[in-house]
Amino acid sequence: MSDFSVSDYRLSTLPEDRRPVCILGLGLIGGSLMRDLKQAGWPVFGWNRSEKTVERASRDGFDASADLVATLQRAEREDALIVLGVPVPALASLFDAISEHAPSCGITDVTSVKVEVHELVEAHGLTDRFVGGHPMAGTANSGWAATMKGLFQGAVWVVTYDNAVEHASANTAGAGSADAASADAASTSAGQSSQRWLDTWIRVVGIAEEVGAAVVPALARRHDRAVARVSHLPHILAEALAVTGDQGGPLALSLAASSFRDGTRVAGTEPALVRAMIENNRTAVVEALDETIALLQQARSDIADPVQDMRGLAEDGNAARGRFEARAGRKRGDTMHRPIIRVRPGQRGWLNQLQSAESMGAQIGIF
Amino acid sequence: MSDFSVSDYRLSTLPEDRRPVCILGLGLIGGSLMRDLKQAGWPVFGWNRSEKTVERASRDGFDASADLVATLQRAEREDALIVLGVPVPALASLFDAISEHAPSCGITDVTSVKVEVHELVEAHGLTDRFVGGHPMAGTANSGWAATMKGLFQGAVWVVTYDNAVEHASANTAGAGSADAASADAASTSAGQSSQRWLDTWIRVVGIAEEVGAAVVPALARRHDRAVARVSHLPHILAEALAVTGDQGGPLALSLAASSFRDGTRVAGTEPALVRAMIENNRTAVVEALDETIALLQQARSDIADPVQDMRGLAEDGNAARGRFEARAGRKRGDTMHRPIIRVRPGQRGWLNQLQSAESMGAQIGIF
Repeated sequence: MSDFSVSDYRLSTLPEDRRPVCILGLGLIGGSLMRDLKQAGWPVFGWNRSEKTVERASRDGFDASADLVATLQRAEREDALIVLGVPVPALASLFDAISEHAPSCGITDVTSVKVEVHELVEAHGLTDRFVGGHPMAGTANSGWAATMKGLFQGAVWVVTYDNAVEHASANTAGAGSADAASADAASTSAGQSSQRWLDTWIRVVGIAEEVGAAVVPALARRHDRAVARVSHLPHILAEALAVTGDQGGPLALSLAASSFRDGTRVAGTEPALVRAMIENNRTAVVEALDETIALLQQARSDIADPVQDMRGLAEDGNAARGRFEARAGRKRGDTMHRPIIRVRPGQRGWLNQLQSAESMGAQIGIF
Repeated sequence: MSDFSVSDYRLSTLPEDRRPVCILGLGLIGGSLMRDLKQAGWPVFGWNRSEKTVERASRDGFDASADLVATLQRAEREDALIVLGVPVPALASLFDAISEHAPSCGITDVTSVKVEVHELVEAHGLTDRFVGGHPMAGTANSGWAATMKGLFQGAVWVVTYDNAVEHASANTAGAGSADAASADAASTSAGQSSQRWLDTWIRVVGIAEEVGAAVVPALARRHDRAVARVSHLPHILAEALAVTGDQGGPLALSLAASSFRDGTRVAGTEPALVRAMIENNRTAVVEALDETIALLQQARSDIADPVQDMRGLAEDGNAARGRFEARAGRKRGDTMHRPIIRVRPGQRGWLNQLQSAESMGAQIGIF
């Protein structure tokens, strides 16, 4: 591990840092990212397993190939950042290929769970050049045909920083990783995250910002617990509501209006996609689901008993929605109000900056 | 009870039947109904407990009074249809006043539960001139200031017909009310619903159609079970989701996107309004909630076990949402596709027509 030199990293965030991006998997996320980066004048090329997708992307003027080895060799040659745009089950074989054909490239991904991906990365010995990513954008559609410009505009793009904490704590004798002050002091010492990891981290933040996303840092496990509550759980509840409404037969469906429509909307998502999210985030989903089931059981018992009332849940739920609205606005398309925290990658205090941003759900900017 | 004469009722549905409407309670529903009826040239006057509301309505050019007795005496004099636009807890005292000051007027209501209201009506001895109604329209706001033109355009307006079934079955020796054929045969005999009830029923359908609503007939208990699933349950789930998301702290709320936004939208409803709906429909809500909790517990156990999967709920929920979309469209503002069934009030076969419409969730038209 080489020493960290501040000037290298300040330079690398300047607009002139347009080292290439290599996207593996040109589906909705990977393909849309390719569109936006090319539009911004960024050198970008990609690979997809399906010849048909490669043909379509090429016809649309993009630099795409179905030859994985050649693509990875080119990535290595051109010092490209590799973006994995494939679903979790396809990651392992790509990590193998990257280890062999692109042994020094930085790597990031765009999948919706992070702990499982980090474990896979660790198992492949790639921790030191991997930064997890999760752009929280998407539509119900998939494949190259669904790709579009501007998909990430205004969306959150979570970027993990587990590597920085691990390196900091590994070099802070007797201090846990939660001890940010000690960890931070250590991060300026010899054992800090590798230059390659920091370089990768800065490049990931750079492309997310380039396409208009708000970068929010989070440890993998905190990301997974957060999305279990606000993204995976809503899918489960929407499905349970859809089934219960449907069991009421035609009369119930005929009387269904906007509360049922909105409450079941994401049940329209392809079941395989829902399963891919949830079955790769089991522990965190079960924790969130247990809390919800406990709330519903309390409400059930309050409603079943004529001398009780459901004031508790009605008022708590309304207050919670109010706090969400205060941050996110009442309607779709309203802009989320997030604090912005400036971070200086690798410099004294930067772990504190990341941890503060994470605890507030704040957006970060590099300076 | 006088005999039913066909020509009377066919006449009463002609556009010339513009006997007055008297609205008690000028909140969102009552006040908006007043706007639409007046706009359509219908004679309409109303009462509200609050002098301030009466002043505002009068200033807007409406015929409003804070004198309940005088209003009811006028309703009786002018053969007005009385529309109760007040919440359930306010109904009992109005039924007392109506019994005393408007002893022959037809009565309907616009509250969101029907069994409890029908029981109250029965206790006041008003069954024979009461038709339950539930226009499924509304906004998060309330009071005269929230009233608007066109609120009911395209909305469902449920109209109950319990009285017709009860009269039919009471006169069909040995046959249950579910025996539509016998009930129907009986409904043309001497013991059928009173002329006053039929007249009220036709007038209620007439005003609902006048303001652009789709009239769907339902027995009180079937209405309550249906709305428990598609209207009351979505509020409970939205509240539980809002609380569980909020318990994830600022990071979770910052990562919350459209699935959380849509899934919690109705948690923004005033808690008192949610409680009024649900606490007046306890049995049906508990039944629906128990089904949902059972689905969630099964999903929880499938997700917690690494060798299981959540295919069951994911696929059932997606299929159920698909059936809803086939009927209602994918987006807000899409038009619900309902069959239309024509009924001939009080004539041979009309109970069959109503029961068919109810079982299909069909809209009815009078001919």
